[in-house]
Amino acid sequence: MDFKMLDEEVSRRGLIKGAAGLAGVVALTAGGLGFLSKAEAAKKGAGELPFPYKKFTDAEIKEAGNIAHDNWFKGFCSYAALSGGLTILRRKIGEPYTSFPMELTTFAHGGTSGWGGTCGTLIGAGVLSTLCAGPKIGEAINNEVCNFYATSALPIFVPDHPKAQIKTTSTSNSPLCHLSVGKWMQKEGVGFLSPQQMDRCGRLAADMCMKTIEYLNLWADGKFEAKTKAPVMANEIPSQNNCTECHGSNIPKTSGKFGTGLDLLKSGH
Amino acid sequence: MDFKMLDEEVSRRGLIKGAAGLAGVVALTAGGLGFLSKAEAAKKGAGELPFPYKKFTDAEIKEAGNIAHDNWFKGFCSYAALSGGLTILRRKIGEPYTSFPMELTTFAHGGTSGWGGTCGTLIGAGVLSTLCAGPKIGEAINNEVCNFYATSALPIFVPDHPKAQIKTTSTSNSPLCHLSVGKWMQKEGVGFLSPQQMDRCGRLAADMCMKTIEYLNLWADGKFEAKTKAPVMANEIPSQNNCTECHGSNIPKTSGKFGTGLDLLKSGH
Repeated sequence: MDFKMLDEEVSRRGLIKGAAGLAGVVALTAGGLGFLSKAEAAKKGAGELPFPYKKFTDAEIKEAGNIAHDNWFKGFCSYAALSGGLTILRRKIGEPYTSFPMELTTFAHGGTSGWGGTCGTLIGAGVLSTLCAGPKIGEAINNEVCNFYATSALPIFVPDHPKAQIKTTSTSNSPLCHLSVGKWMQKEGVGFLSPQQMDRCGRLAADMCMKTIEYLNLWADGKFEAKTKAPVMANEIPSQNNCTECHGSNIPKTSGKFGTGLDLLKSGH
Repeated sequence: MDFKMLDEEVSRRGLIKGAAGLAGVVALTAGGLGFLSKAEAAKKGAGELPFPYKKFTDAEIKEAGNIAHDNWFKGFCSYAALSGGLTILRRKIGEPYTSFPMELTTFAHGGTSGWGGTCGTLIGAGVLSTLCAGPKIGEAINNEVCNFYATSALPIFVPDHPKAQIKTTSTSNSPLCHLSVGKWMQKEGVGFLSPQQMDRCGRLAADMCMKTIEYLNLWADGKFEAKTKAPVMANEIPSQNNCTECHGSNIPKTSGKFGTGLDLLKSGH
């Protein structure tokens, strides 16, 4: 039974759980080949991650934000967040970014094909961080970006060319499209597909795109620290952190003991 | 203001809403360049979607399912669902699949970096359908797969090499990891990272991978029909369809009128 990757994942989670010290910083900034060993990667040839990365300047980060905002109106949120970074990476670096399909995550808009799940900006942003830093660091960055998404009053970015004026920011306490856009629309007093909602979502795509690039820049300098405890470890199930908002005081217990998989790992099965 | 894409999207949604007849089938099986015009795509050069597709045989679909199940234990759910299809596409077709990074959506496991949002299998599956059929058809297929996920008693697939025996299936009524795995664990009586939960999620990754390939095969034959009304259109907000499960009888109204964005489009702004 090949639990090596799960083992590594759990080890990394443990690291994150303990709030990364110096050793954590070193481990998380090593780049490399993600969860495949070098031998495995060499075997598979092309298609390796990460792609080469060059730090964005402050002007380029702002430009990425403006591209993301503008591109919301071409392909919605997930396309916006990914294309904001990818457009500049294609210009700065070229291949393999040029051959990477810009529209790959367009389906993820509206919380995945409109189903209200994970905000599409976080899927576009996760692909961006994975492309540039590989699957392990890419996920560690995405976890921080999810936390930023759930805990910040958004949107923050003010685009050069807004398509609507908006009055309100709101904190979602959730990575979900439905809760994030729903709470904001209620506060702003507008409906779905109103000019305000569309511009708000475009600005939010810019925020996630830019935050991802800021973390990538830190990582490139060896300064990225994973600070956010992944909710799956905190709550013993993949989850948000605001259990009572949906469950009230009646939060279900998972029936079994959490961590039997970890025990299995430790016993070498 | 460039609302062309939004316009096309809304038209397509309208098409889906009305349940695709012959015209719909033709429109949705035309393949092509997704939401970019041919001129735009020619300008950008490489990185175009869709990649070439060849129909999977029944044996290959089953093999994809087994690869997905096995690969859950190497990179979790999203990696599993994508790699099940991609491994066979690399063997059948080669480039550009060989150069496409297999680990791209690993971060999406556990509902996006463990945050319990959209099940990672649906993100891996959405990338698979988008690669093979482009962003428009890829999303239409993903919408059907999301509906299959939310309405079916899962898992269905029985792998050649199960790593645990399981007793239970459950219907999530949701595309969310948290609800899907939570309901199943409660019914099975096991905890997170138990051998049963891990094998269940591996089987479910196989189900989403195989269902995506089945739809891609139908599309390749000109027989794919988009039948599921996207919840964003049904409920006037990106959402699941079981509003009362979280909201009880107190379902919030969006404050504004749905469709002002559509009105804006129609008035040519």
